[in-house]
Amino acid sequence: MGIKKHLVIIPMKKKLHLVKLGGNIIENPEELEEFLIDFSKIDAPKILIHGGGKLATKLAERLGIKQNMIDGRRITDAETLEIITMVYGGLISKKIVASLAAHNNQALGLSGADLNCMTAVRRPVNPIDYGYVGDPQKVDSKVLGDLLNSGFVPVFSALSHDGKGQLLNTNADTMASVIASALSDGYDCFLYYCFEKKGVLKDIKDDNSVLSEINLATYQKMRSENQVYAGMIPKIDTAFEAVKNGVKEVFILKAEDLLSVIKSNVKNGTKISL
Amino acid sequence: MGIKKHLVIIPMKKKLHLVKLGGNIIENPEELEEFLIDFSKIDAPKILIHGGGKLATKLAERLGIKQNMIDGRRITDAETLEIITMVYGGLISKKIVASLAAHNNQALGLSGADLNCMTAVRRPVNPIDYGYVGDPQKVDSKVLGDLLNSGFVPVFSALSHDGKGQLLNTNADTMASVIASALSDGYDCFLYYCFEKKGVLKDIKDDNSVLSEINLATYQKMRSENQVYAGMIPKIDTAFEAVKNGVKEVFILKAEDLLSVIKSNVKNGTKISL
Repeated sequence: MGIKKHLVIIPMKKKLHLVKLGGNIIENPEELEEFLIDFSKIDAPKILIHGGGKLATKLAERLGIKQNMIDGRRITDAETLEIITMVYGGLISKKIVASLAAHNNQALGLSGADLNCMTAVRRPVNPIDYGYVGDPQKVDSKVLGDLLNSGFVPVFSALSHDGKGQLLNTNADTMASVIASALSDGYDCFLYYCFEKKGVLKDIKDDNSVLSEINLATYQKMRSENQVYAGMIPKIDTAFEAVKNGVKEVFILKAEDLLSVIKSNVKNGTKISL
Repeated sequence: MGIKKHLVIIPMKKKLHLVKLGGNIIENPEELEEFLIDFSKIDAPKILIHGGGKLATKLAERLGIKQNMIDGRRITDAETLEIITMVYGGLISKKIVASLAAHNNQALGLSGADLNCMTAVRRPVNPIDYGYVGDPQKVDSKVLGDLLNSGFVPVFSALSHDGKGQLLNTNADTMASVIASALSDGYDCFLYYCFEKKGVLKDIKDDNSVLSEINLATYQKMRSENQVYAGMIPKIDTAFEAVKNGVKEVFILKAEDLLSVIKSNVKNGTKISL
């Protein structure tokens, strides 16, 4: 008929699930264990990213080291960096890794310094000096791909380094977004921000006022009308960054809903889309 | 001539250098950095194993958690295990990894729980209850070989796990011996116990009375004559275990002599042989 038919073969990318765990779940051993049992049941390549701010604050209090937060971001002096390194990179990371091992996952605790897999730039003083805080610069997606191909489960603590020997405290939400973005060339990435709320709430006082989806237009409208809870803005911003960078789907949801969203495609939480 | 000549090809095994770092070096940032610069210059497959007992004791003191030692071994209750996990698995491990990264080594901080690479059995109460202390049971030499083949530099902290979710404090000298033994099938293993003394001293008060070699016969004679400093006995015992299990050469030496012994074959320290 004069029309040539082209058969275009688009290679199927593998699915990769990236889960950021935050909030109060990490400091509650029972809730953490329940979450890790669920996470261990994801039978596809996966990465866990965790913070641990509340436990770090508790240790700082016990040691009498005053913590200064600005808009929820921790001013990280040398002593605070040591606390962060101990709590995120040691205590929480190794507990998670040991638990996942018990549930037949070959987990591997990583900071950005390990295998040099994520470098960051110390945040410039402008005007606030955040101290030893780093903004991610480069992710080694090759080495992470190799780990995933070996069947390993990377478990990232919110620590990176500058490549010159200096560890840097790094926001876990941002790390999750940046790692998912970097791996989007090779994988269909699904990113889940898990915390204790059911999703982004329309009314912060009403736990059931979950917004099922936010797109850029509705987000801008909500922002202009001051309808977004200030504490959620950085998280939602990093979620949008991920979508813009090619991450296939991004959700903000309750940790205990994770498995049903992944396995049963149940519509829980808030989907972030362009 | 009636005599058949056989050409037997014995495949050359690769050299693997395993270095245990202990003593006072870890808690001195300048000495640690000097050591890591030397270690980074070993241009062959290598593994670092570290403890960090003195820093753990300091943190315990700051937190008001009483430490009980029996014959130099730490009674590890739940709170002490958290300290160990933070200090060994977090603070020291991540600092070492970040420093090695700056010196162009792709280092990877590992506990036994990571990649499930070393399981241990909680030490039976007989008659002392050491608490959460584990004696190594199984090393996954396959996974360690894969990491080495990838050019990675494993950095072990003295932590293992029972495979059921429980982390266990594990003697770093023992870990080094067990890991070297497990890898001896695939590699010519060279094991170096580095600390602040020049080797095993004939006279504990004379830093220059280094014994250049101890074999089983001389060791037994020395032991029977009470000529071995009590604090050195567990280290020397684990060194002999390594030699018995096929580790090619084992040395006890001063950390700053490591590179000259490896690179120039300078005879420093004490060689342990059968």
